[in-house]
Amino acid sequence: MEYALEHLGVAVAAVTGVLAARGKRIDLFGILVLALVTAFGGGTTRDLLLGVRVFWVGDPWYLVTATITAVAWFFVAHLRRLAPRALLVADAYALALFTVVGTRKALWVGADPFIAVGMGVVTGVAGGIARDVLLGSIPLVFRPYIHLYATAAAVGAAAFVGLARVAPAMSPYNMLAATLVIVALRLAGIRWRLTLPVLDEEETPPQEP
Amino acid sequence: MEYALEHLGVAVAAVTGVLAARGKRIDLFGILVLALVTAFGGGTTRDLLLGVRVFWVGDPWYLVTATITAVAWFFVAHLRRLAPRALLVADAYALALFTVVGTRKALWVGADPFIAVGMGVVTGVAGGIARDVLLGSIPLVFRPYIHLYATAAAVGAAAFVGLARVAPAMSPYNMLAATLVIVALRLAGIRWRLTLPVLDEEETPPQEP
Amino acid sequence: MEYALEHLGVAVAAVTGVLAARGKRIDLFGILVLALVTAFGGGTTRDLLLGVRVFWVGDPWYLVTATITAVAWFFVAHLRRLAPRALLVADAYALALFTVVGTRKALWVGADPFIAVGMGVVTGVAGGIARDVLLGSIPLVFRPYIHLYATAAAVGAAAFVGLARVAPAMSPYNMLAATLVIVALRLAGIRWRLTLPVLDEEETPPQEP
Repeated sequence: MEYALEHLGVAVAAVTGVLAARGKRIDLFGILVLALVTAFGGGTTRDLLLGVRVFWVGDPWYLVTATITAVAWFFVAHLRRLAPRALLVADAYALALFTVVGTRKALWVGADPFIAVGMGVVTGVAGGIARDVLLGSIPLVFRPYIHLYATAAAVGAAAFVGLARVAPAMSPYNMLAATLVIVALRLAGIRWRLTLPVLDEEETPPQEP
Repeated sequence: MEYALEHLGVAVAAVTGVLAARGKRIDLFGILVLALVTAFGGGTTRDLLLGVRVFWVGDPWYLVTATITAVAWFFVAHLRRLAPRALLVADAYALALFTVVGTRKALWVGADPFIAVGMGVVTGVAGGIARDVLLGSIPLVFRPYIHLYATAAAVGAAAFVGLARVAPAMSPYNMLAATLVIVALRLAGIRWRLTLPVLDEEETPPQEP
Repeated sequence: MEYALEHLGVAVAAVTGVLAARGKRIDLFGILVLALVTAFGGGTTRDLLLGVRVFWVGDPWYLVTATITAVAWFFVAHLRRLAPRALLVADAYALALFTVVGTRKALWVGADPFIAVGMGVVTGVAGGIARDVLLGSIPLVFRPYIHLYATAAAVGAAAFVGLARVAPAMSPYNMLAATLVIVALRLAGIRWRLTLPVLDEEETPPQEP
């Protein structure tokens, strides 16, 4: 069950990698790299930092799932547009799942709680950051207008770390609760357009008189 | 012999790193970093993912070869243009060599065949991707107009994995055959302008009436 | 003492990460990532390449120092401008410290002297390179107009490696001497506008008649 959910997360992340390449004249191989980087970038960074075996190198099925999803999406992407709302919800789920899995893995290998929250956020957002860097853009998650993306991940990771102190750390209920926190916060951020402060907010252009 | 061929591959990759910096007002240190990243980026990524010792950290001669090549090229680059055709052939050779060496190393440490093909492609193309990212460009290998670069690497890596099942895996003939596959496919791609499909091909500008 | 100096280096690097985001409409989370990448990017790259435990993963106080500095700076940055001269001197100190610590760590784990110099330079400059890549710019250290940044690091790292051969390698006097070499060279570079040669220097625009 958990394994199937992880594959779903990988597939959703791969789709966002494909969609990010729209309009940039990138070929099938480039699309595939972008999809794989988005799907595996976070977990790979986490595993390298923690000094453990990179999760997808020992199990080729992750690579198979992401490759098939990306290539399939490449060929159907121009048939019809995906409902943007469905994609946002799926992406919020992938963010939540990656973050919670990453936090749990960090605690599992004995990381300090503060480090574990950081590893959860890294797992959730590093893939998207790498995707945007490869496309030559400033990462979307650094921008105020995406509305509580990394913040939702950080709050959910902290919730998981807190729950792991009071309940058995690897309980599936902890995972479920932290996942719901992230999805709820993320969707609330989109719904009410919540933003973090911006460094140069004071330099807003003058209002029309 | 193999060691000498590897140093030749590193030197060729370093030269492409130097050439990529043309016209961007980058100084000698920047050139050196670009050359080293192009030459070592693929093998370094592969070794980190496989969890083995990074190949050039234990043997300073790789670093010496790449540094001397890059600095020498920096000072002669403006003397005369290199024949573009010679460079393309040398680069196809470096791509082939890196890919085959990477695939072989992955099999050697016990990776799954599908993962080994991925590691071969990573070894062949990750250096060039990192070079282009440092220069703020979308990586060349993602673009259709470079004609079967990563695809050639993937086919050659798969050929090596297939040969390793029927012949002794570390046989030099397997390496030679896979290298030839990649060089031939790459040069055929350039000669006949073969391309992979592009995501937004359908959005071509309207024809003049 | 040495631990306190390291935290000072991390804090200074975090501040340069915050300042680099000015005028790009990056939110608080983006600022924090830029600060952490600048502060930890060099040491993380070094530790991954050397195959040792990443320094900040085992000790959360580094992460705490960098996070508090970045968030605090975020909120005071618009109150008043920092004297640019003070920042340049602080940054030269952080460059020197990171480089010397990196060189020493590489020698400590048994790296070849040439590799150790490379690891020192990586520790000193990789954080800033990653910061600039995340912002979509060609890294500042590749540009001639920043005046002997990486070159100062390389000379200081080589001085440390040389001193480690004649004096006890881990002596604090060696560290102090190499640090002074880097700070002096860097400040001299700024004062007299010293530059490395540029690849396309010959393509300077024609002089006014």
